[in-house]
Amino acid sequence: MENPLTPEVLADPVALTRALVDIESVSLHEKEIADCVEAVLRAVPHLSVRRHGNTVMARTDLGRERRVVLAGHLDTVPLNDNFPSWMQGDLLYGCGTSDMKSGVAYALHLAVTVPDPRYDVTYFFYEAEEIESRYNGLTLVSQAHPEWLTADFAVLLEPTYGVVEAGCQGTMRATVGTTGRRAHSARSWHGVNAIHAAGEVLRRLESYEARAVTIDGCTYREGMNAVSIRGGVAGNVVPDRCEVEVNYRFAPDRSEQEAQDHVREVFAGYEVTVTDSAAGALPGLTAEPAREFLAAVGEAPVGKLGWTDVARFAALGIPALNFGPGDPNLAHAPDEHVEIGKIRDGAATLHRWLAS
Amino acid sequence: MENPLTPEVLADPVALTRALVDIESVSLHEKEIADCVEAVLRAVPHLSVRRHGNTVMARTDLGRERRVVLAGHLDTVPLNDNFPSWMQGDLLYGCGTSDMKSGVAYALHLAVTVPDPRYDVTYFFYEAEEIESRYNGLTLVSQAHPEWLTADFAVLLEPTYGVVEAGCQGTMRATVGTTGRRAHSARSWHGVNAIHAAGEVLRRLESYEARAVTIDGCTYREGMNAVSIRGGVAGNVVPDRCEVEVNYRFAPDRSEQEAQDHVREVFAGYEVTVTDSAAGALPGLTAEPAREFLAAVGEAPVGKLGWTDVARFAALGIPALNFGPGDPNLAHAPDEHVEIGKIRDGAATLHRWLAS
Repeated sequence: MENPLTPEVLADPVALTRALVDIESVSLHEKEIADCVEAVLRAVPHLSVRRHGNTVMARTDLGRERRVVLAGHLDTVPLNDNFPSWMQGDLLYGCGTSDMKSGVAYALHLAVTVPDPRYDVTYFFYEAEEIESRYNGLTLVSQAHPEWLTADFAVLLEPTYGVVEAGCQGTMRATVGTTGRRAHSARSWHGVNAIHAAGEVLRRLESYEARAVTIDGCTYREGMNAVSIRGGVAGNVVPDRCEVEVNYRFAPDRSEQEAQDHVREVFAGYEVTVTDSAAGALPGLTAEPAREFLAAVGEAPVGKLGWTDVARFAALGIPALNFGPGDPNLAHAPDEHVEIGKIRDGAATLHRWLAS
Repeated sequence: MENPLTPEVLADPVALTRALVDIESVSLHEKEIADCVEAVLRAVPHLSVRRHGNTVMARTDLGRERRVVLAGHLDTVPLNDNFPSWMQGDLLYGCGTSDMKSGVAYALHLAVTVPDPRYDVTYFFYEAEEIESRYNGLTLVSQAHPEWLTADFAVLLEPTYGVVEAGCQGTMRATVGTTGRRAHSARSWHGVNAIHAAGEVLRRLESYEARAVTIDGCTYREGMNAVSIRGGVAGNVVPDRCEVEVNYRFAPDRSEQEAQDHVREVFAGYEVTVTDSAAGALPGLTAEPAREFLAAVGEAPVGKLGWTDVARFAALGIPALNFGPGDPNLAHAPDEHVEIGKIRDGAATLHRWLAS
């Protein structure tokens, strides 16, 4: 196969985005795109390249005082009648245009075209971000080669529509259960209705006042929501069990343990089982490379509300933020697209920061 | 096959109960038991006998002023390691002992042994009471031979533990739905949570004050219960739909339409869809055969809280009550049984009423 990532394509972030989109790479099928990326990087004299599975790492070793990471995932969600890409006016359509091959294009473009960056840079092109965590390329590298991740600051090239979204919120799922006593519904007073008992759980959710926490100028607005409710035995039975699944999105000033304590406090008196939990990430905008990055962007950062892989860097003690040209609301949508102007603006920003 | 319903067996309600239990007759498999019952009845000179499917009808035609019905269903729920019957002290165990072959035994014993009853009597031995209404022997007869059902009063030999349970409550199921607007749970304020909205539905159920209505001295205690709740799209989505299934058991002073109006009133402001409805039956204890029956029993009647086939008679304008030796709480249970003493007491009562 001829590598579509030619020198002309690599020189233009827009052409590069389109070329990357047109290499199909649904999660767990990243070999072809990783091969193309690896081949390009191995030809660059100022980079040393490593590969683990379908994750490719390339780094400069210029002896700079600081090292930064630029990271993008190579995989996409399944195609949805949106492959290959197409142009419509100033918009590039197709699976992965927003999430996040336009971001991957930034990293690859900079890796090839900035031989003398102001910081040492580690570029990650990683696999399997869109599926279970155990397949995630950053997870696998952190287990097999933790030293590859050493850095002072990380930029994750997730779609943020050209804004700096710093850190990220944590997420926790918990089941809140009520119990009762079964009875025939014709003689319901012999029983205790567990669904009726869940009324108080919903009442607490309804009246819950979510925090909005500002850290380093970024506001993290929390949320506590029932995402599922299940109860009932049969059409003529007073039910003895009801379960409400609650999703708590928490600001990064709270640890997972503090978030769990809070959920248990909100639902005091009920059986609470935590089923899923992921820590948030503090914005960490006071580190010098972060401050310089914000100066290059020139706009105030906001808090990232969804959970992203910045939390993996935060867990390693590396401040991290999200920055990409795509609109996060279009990620995973059949009409996913990215604005050409946004790609060019962001590329210029990154170049200004890294090459100045 | 030799008919186990011999003259000796027919003369003794206890032996007859046991013999009937030992003819397997799970719903839709009543042919064998109906054949045995029909053969017995055809040999009785004072009865004329008809059959429709596996429902057998036998009647006296003595020119009495009043006609009463005695009815029992031949089928049982599926066996549950409780076939054939066994004795333990004063208890007869086995599938159908309570619900309702001890009641069927009453009808068959009286049909054979009371040639000169004070009222004309129509005995029904019918199929498929335990399953969907469209298979029910009384439903089928009411469609094919409505004249067979003509009567002034009916006794349904359902288990009541020797007490007169008059009329029955109605039952209605309705789905109460809430709607919202989907959103990512990380930005939940863009959505409207339909599960949280169901909190108000549960609140109304919790605070609902059920009526207790006394008619002809019988108290019908109502109930309004959630029997199921379902809602939720995915673990990270604010749900846009929640459905609560409510079962309303209503006293027979309310028609189905009134019951429906009441449910809609309780859940005013919500989408209410009635999914299932069956009218109750007034006790009708003022008819002369009913008064005589109560005198023979000698104990105050109570209201029947569950729904039974008495409602089918009530719908035809025939007052009806439930009377049988079994404990209704043991119906459908693996350890279903009936007290021998209760069988004898009830048979004596019926004999006193009908033969005096």
